[in-house]
Amino acid sequence: MEKIKPRTLSGFMELLPQDQMKFRGMTQALRRTFSLYGFSPIDTPLIEESSILLAKGGGDTEKQIYRFTKGDSDLALRFDLTVPLARYVAQHYAELTFPFRRYQIGKVYRGERAQRGRFREFYQADIDIIGDGKLDIINEAEIPSIIYRAFTEMGLTRFLIRINNRKILTGFYAMLGLADKAGDIMRTVDKLEKIGPDKVRAILTDDFAVAPAAADEILRFIAVKGSNRDILDALAAYRGRNETFDRGLEELAAVTRYLAEFGVPEDHFAVDLTIARGLDYYTGTVYETAMLDHPEVGSICSGGRYDNLAEYYTDRPLPGVGISIGLTRLFFVLGDCGLLSPDYPSAPADALIIPMTDDLAPAVSLATALRADGVRAQLYREDKKFKQKMAYADKLGIPFVILLGEDEIAAGKAALKNMLTGEQVLLPPEAVAGRIRAVTAAADSGKVIRED
Amino acid sequence: MEKIKPRTLSGFMELLPQDQMKFRGMTQALRRTFSLYGFSPIDTPLIEESSILLAKGGGDTEKQIYRFTKGDSDLALRFDLTVPLARYVAQHYAELTFPFRRYQIGKVYRGERAQRGRFREFYQADIDIIGDGKLDIINEAEIPSIIYRAFTEMGLTRFLIRINNRKILTGFYAMLGLADKAGDIMRTVDKLEKIGPDKVRAILTDDFAVAPAAADEILRFIAVKGSNRDILDALAAYRGRNETFDRGLEELAAVTRYLAEFGVPEDHFAVDLTIARGLDYYTGTVYETAMLDHPEVGSICSGGRYDNLAEYYTDRPLPGVGISIGLTRLFFVLGDCGLLSPDYPSAPADALIIPMTDDLAPAVSLATALRADGVRAQLYREDKKFKQKMAYADKLGIPFVILLGEDEIAAGKAALKNMLTGEQVLLPPEAVAGRIRAVTAAADSGKVIRED
Repeated sequence: MEKIKPRTLSGFMELLPQDQMKFRGMTQALRRTFSLYGFSPIDTPLIEESSILLAKGGGDTEKQIYRFTKGDSDLALRFDLTVPLARYVAQHYAELTFPFRRYQIGKVYRGERAQRGRFREFYQADIDIIGDGKLDIINEAEIPSIIYRAFTEMGLTRFLIRINNRKILTGFYAMLGLADKAGDIMRTVDKLEKIGPDKVRAILTDDFAVAPAAADEILRFIAVKGSNRDILDALAAYRGRNETFDRGLEELAAVTRYLAEFGVPEDHFAVDLTIARGLDYYTGTVYETAMLDHPEVGSICSGGRYDNLAEYYTDRPLPGVGISIGLTRLFFVLGDCGLLSPDYPSAPADALIIPMTDDLAPAVSLATALRADGVRAQLYREDKKFKQKMAYADKLGIPFVILLGEDEIAAGKAALKNMLTGEQVLLPPEAVAGRIRAVTAAADSGKVIRED
Repeated sequence: MEKIKPRTLSGFMELLPQDQMKFRGMTQALRRTFSLYGFSPIDTPLIEESSILLAKGGGDTEKQIYRFTKGDSDLALRFDLTVPLARYVAQHYAELTFPFRRYQIGKVYRGERAQRGRFREFYQADIDIIGDGKLDIINEAEIPSIIYRAFTEMGLTRFLIRINNRKILTGFYAMLGLADKAGDIMRTVDKLEKIGPDKVRAILTDDFAVAPAAADEILRFIAVKGSNRDILDALAAYRGRNETFDRGLEELAAVTRYLAEFGVPEDHFAVDLTIARGLDYYTGTVYETAMLDHPEVGSICSGGRYDNLAEYYTDRPLPGVGISIGLTRLFFVLGDCGLLSPDYPSAPADALIIPMTDDLAPAVSLATALRADGVRAQLYREDKKFKQKMAYADKLGIPFVILLGEDEIAAGKAALKNMLTGEQVLLPPEAVAGRIRAVTAAADSGKVIRED
């Protein structure tokens, strides 16, 4: 029979078991954290009607989406988790309780040009808090504090959550008489880090006909730097000239204060007036997250406050705030930067039990007892040489091997070998689980990410 | 703006948050169980090249598959987790360690005719053990013992794992000189429960030209009933006439013995000679799992032993044994039969903290302390009447509300209200977590499934 070459598509990440355990470590840290803050997991279909996913339409979305027909249906794969959330909340509005806190970790699809570190199938991890009609400002501080906890839980420490408020920006541009150009200006300013201030100025004056004086004012404004206190003080100088600006400043001050109360250290969040987020629908606080030692990576977690989650599906105003992590890309970047901990436990089992008698009963009953005690135990009874059996445990990184031969069974003992230290001890079966767990529990508290 | 009606596609299950928590309870029970037996989670792309997924081709697969083009690529959504596993093992052969134990819980796609309880997008949960060239018989007993544990962990008790061995069947048909018709006969016999013995006999003699005497012999053979011991004894009478049969009988006897050793009670597994599994590639032990009180549901978990997992992708013989649960359908059936426990904890949080002062610091620091202690805590600071705040906790089934007013804060206490009993106590903040966990821990040990 002719064989078909087994391979995955370009842009589709597939992990070997040990890396998969690390990836799982990341998603588990996220799930655990999100749960602690009262978020419910939801799960929406990967396929939806194209008319629903493309309700907003335009831009890269239409070009990149995986769209196809099945029978008479015009279908597409979701390209983010926000549109499905909007559809979910509009559809199930009557059965949900607001504010509705949900998290979703799932795959999304974008047929981007394949290039290193870009994926066509990738996991996003999203949290959102949706209000019915209104939503308190405290949620805009809690969201980044959850992200702080989540990254900390993973072991990431060298990161900075940068925040801004869209009302400050739109208010400021209105002050300059540029309200109608605010969107274009923000998208241009968003590129500041990439292209530098001179190019930003050129685009503003040349492409968008911003007066040179106004362009200079904009560049001065976004150049305001310093501690959060310094920036808030500098912004206070503009107060009283535009209502939206004033409201934005109040919100930013409140979010900054709450973030500290939520326990986010001052060196992990910073007001940054250059952050705008390209998307139109943000209306309040916006977030980006940078890896301090790897600015080239760009934002690893972004989001913000919006006024109308589901305007394409319902007349109901559903304001909310949310944030999204591109998990697959983050995992790739962490690996690429050498930040995935080699010590993170990624063996499939804690103990490999090697029976050395024909009667398997003692080995099986030990395995059953260990599992009841929460120890991941695998029986190994393949027809191999002893050395190969030990090599199996070694290759998989299984930390303990348990040998059960006639002598051990006769003595009512099991021989427990620590594969790391080489130490071997004879123990009564009921003492084995405790001994193993003493070692694995220490390892389990390890973090997926290690920055040296 | 005109609104688009928010809806999901027919045949696509989407759950509300409380049901989602129950579904998650099922997958968590599976993950926990599979991990305890040394299985690694893997995750493969949902999209693969059509030529890979359809390597075997034929039958319903080609008709039902979601297939489409993107650029020049002929793509398809996976329709099971077995073909991707075969591709994965063939592709990563050099980097895997055998026997390779993997589990995968993921969505698969089949464009079947939509009907009640049939899904086009559904979760499968698969475990497989793949050997390199050979694989010990004990694995064929361990697989159903894992399923026994997993269902027990979920709370399902009224089920029966039925096992048979394909070698016994092929050997038996060879004895009757029907080796070349064995496949057709097995597929016919597989329908015994649905269509009855008379129709089976008619199909055998009319459609497949089996001699009437042989058809009678077949019906007598599959009618052998009784305890596992009885059936094995009855089978012994055929011994010595066909090598394959004899080997199958030995295997079946071994699997039956090991299953008991693995702690599966005799009333949860039964040798059943009618089980054949339609698929060609099973070559040894085969399994089906019936819900005793709901035989109409059919098998909720099926699988078996195969000799060549990846023959379309590699020349290497990769024998294995695996089993699959159709999770979405199982969840639907459990709900339909009223077997999902109403007591299973499905609230998004353990405690709702309601601050009643402008200064949020005490509430935030209590929330932070509770979360550090593993208590899922949500701050509620929306601008609502007190009654509405309590109603929020009530609707979501959050078991505790914590009130922090000026009096409580001045006294260094928190008011903890048990929403179920109505009891309210004043406690120092550091005592709150313990009090909550004493109640939620009892609920957490609850099972997703409750059979009365």
